Amino acid sequence: MTADIEFLPQGTVTSPEGFFAGATSAGINERAADKPDLAVLFSEAPCLAAAVFTVTKLKAAPVLLSQQRLKERGKIGAVVVNSGCANAYVGEQGLIDAAGMAALVGKGIGVVPEDVLVASTGVIGTPLPMDKIRASVDKIVLDRDGGHQLAKAIMTTDTQPKEAAVRVKDGNVEFTIGGVAKGSGMIHPDLATLLGFITTDAAVEKDFLQKALKKAVDASFNMISVDGDTSPNDMALVMANGLAGNVPAGVFESALEQLCIYLAKLIAGDGEGATRLIEMTVSGAINTLEARTAARAVVSSALVKAAVYGADPNWGRIMAAVGRSGAEVEESKFDLYIGEIQVVKAGKALPFNEPAVVKLLKGDEVHFGANLNLGSGQATAWGCDLSPEYVTINSQYMT
Amino acid sequence: MTADIEFLPQGTVTSPEGFFAGATSAGINERAADKPDLAVLFSEAPCLAAAVFTVTKLKAAPVLLSQQRLKERGKIGAVVVNSGCANAYVGEQGLIDAAGMAALVGKGIGVVPEDVLVASTGVIGTPLPMDKIRASVDKIVLDRDGGHQLAKAIMTTDTQPKEAAVRVKDGNVEFTIGGVAKGSGMIHPDLATLLGFITTDAAVEKDFLQKALKKAVDASFNMISVDGDTSPNDMALVMANGLAGNVPAGVFESALEQLCIYLAKLIAGDGEGATRLIEMTVSGAINTLEARTAARAVVSSALVKAAVYGADPNWGRIMAAVGRSGAEVEESKFDLYIGEIQVVKAGKALPFNEPAVVKLLKGDEVHFGANLNLGSGQATAWGCDLSPEYVTINSQYMT
Repeated sequence: MTADIEFLPQGTVTSPEGFFAGATSAGINERAADKPDLAVLFSEAPCLAAAVFTVTKLKAAPVLLSQQRLKERGKIGAVVVNSGCANAYVGEQGLIDAAGMAALVGKGIGVVPEDVLVASTGVIGTPLPMDKIRASVDKIVLDRDGGHQLAKAIMTTDTQPKEAAVRVKDGNVEFTIGGVAKGSGMIHPDLATLLGFITTDAAVEKDFLQKALKKAVDASFNMISVDGDTSPNDMALVMANGLAGNVPAGVFESALEQLCIYLAKLIAGDGEGATRLIEMTVSGAINTLEARTAARAVVSSALVKAAVYGADPNWGRIMAAVGRSGAEVEESKFDLYIGEIQVVKAGKALPFNEPAVVKLLKGDEVHFGANLNLGSGQATAWGCDLSPEYVTINSQYMT
Repeated sequence: MTADIEFLPQGTVTSPEGFFAGATSAGINERAADKPDLAVLFSEAPCLAAAVFTVTKLKAAPVLLSQQRLKERGKIGAVVVNSGCANAYVGEQGLIDAAGMAALVGKGIGVVPEDVLVASTGVIGTPLPMDKIRASVDKIVLDRDGGHQLAKAIMTTDTQPKEAAVRVKDGNVEFTIGGVAKGSGMIHPDLATLLGFITTDAAVEKDFLQKALKKAVDASFNMISVDGDTSPNDMALVMANGLAGNVPAGVFESALEQLCIYLAKLIAGDGEGATRLIEMTVSGAINTLEARTAARAVVSSALVKAAVYGADPNWGRIMAAVGRSGAEVEESKFDLYIGEIQVVKAGKALPFNEPAVVKLLKGDEVHFGANLNLGSGQATAWGCDLSPEYVTINSQYMT
């Protein structure tokens, strides 16, 4: 099995066969009136779909609606998504507006309204400006290359669009998986921590698609953290229109995971105020689950993140984060690396070349590795440093 | 039962009968050479003692040693504590040095070395400078008023000492509880999250003392958060020398809790870089445990903390934090208040006077209240805002 998985130049969510997208500036976010903020993703062939959603108990209306439709409908035809307003915590009006937005889009593109999913991101507690959406939805032009527009439309405090596509060749089989995501704030592990839309022209079964997505998300979007907060709106959706025919299960899973990890790293590295990406690999844990727990604790630690911002080789904070993570760990077996430089061996500090470590900490990507030397569990998590800019952004988000 | 519980002016850990303390500048922290950093707390009568410790799996040497001694020894006579060096993650040398520090102190004051507990706080991964400690320990002068010195000696990035004492009168019974604490960074709920030393001249049984401490800590030190991180060194210790005779159990519990809450609020309000204290009360939860979970999620949220720093009335973040906390909550029953001003009723935003809310958010203490309207569980948690200063402090801690 030597499938060839290749990232496409300019790849995006509309790279797979049969997918179209478009966006417009509806003025939903009054402070960014020029930015596209309303977008549609459409497949010319109805799609099997699977998704993971935020696990919060107070979910936004679009999440509730999309969850229900995914459960009730056989296939879906489109997704409408807006930024600038989360349509969360506005009472029953939220569900009415979410359904209304889907209906407007469905009517325009000839898809049954109930086969349109909805996603929103932005300020919580403000009703959707339905008049603006009604006035703008017809301006959206669907295009085979429209994924780039969609990627821009879902951005909030993101500094750059996040999109990619992989083309897979395996013998005679050839298919594509594309995706866009937005992140930036309210990003935390163990949840569908973002808006992510993934498409494929592969033909797969629905149960398999759900399983493959869950597996890919566990290794990607669930392994990133920006600030430990979780949004009521988070969802990661995958749509499969089958136009490329059947594909080998293992190859599909592997390609989907690679794409999701690529997008997840883009989110982590573009966290609010971030100046560098942190990659933490834990090996030698009792099992994969514990490795994940430990790795996420490190990239979630405010103290580790602040130290990375200052290029401060305060490795004790990394060790402390692993220690409190809940994962099994024994001090006398603990090894720690900053980049390739070992700083702790069997629980004890090693003398290290401080200027060399500081130089590593000043790179765009900072790599930490801990070996717990207890088992074969391994996992990698991604995060970003904590800068004063994070505070500035989030102290003035609403006002 | 109308016991009179009164906070003493200038109250401190040596306010109860028979307690002495003193401190000196041993130069353990080279960057703050003038600051006292080595202190002893001593009781002229041997003490029953109880403690709660950090729950991390990688505990610092002084925690391991003190835990063991509390278990093995009947009574203790003194505590030695240093700031500037955590004596954590330095291998077996840590235990040797912790025991060595206790022995030096025990010898000087005539207490069996094994009856001396040890606590440390400061940078992780550096061995204790035993030569400096050896050269300085004899300079410590124990004094009935020495609690103030001890309060200063345990400070690291704290901006002010944290100390208090309550005098309790209940009929013919009269006793005092005193305490000092340090906090500032690595402060997070559900753990013994700080160094806290509490003393009393009340005569109480050891099991009761442990139970009363746990109960008080659950309502105080476990309800504060500064940054979500947990130190390997955290401990809260209570010592009872019995000089004031027997006391009513309920009155003792109540006074201990009040003292701990007072100290906990001082820690939360003096979190690294903090400009204001956040108090979050959750009522109407299914039970007390769920109320605590929800309240702590709010004061731990980086986004809520950043919004408070900017006096940004972004109440959706408070609601989102409650929603993801894991506590049972129903959107249609959720009420939210900023100070006395209701901003959400039955899950829906109410129009509110924004300048009035912003004014409340600019106060030294910001109060949030959520009523889940599901049961009678109630709890209060305390935290602080997140300022750019937090990042500055923590990006340059070690270097």
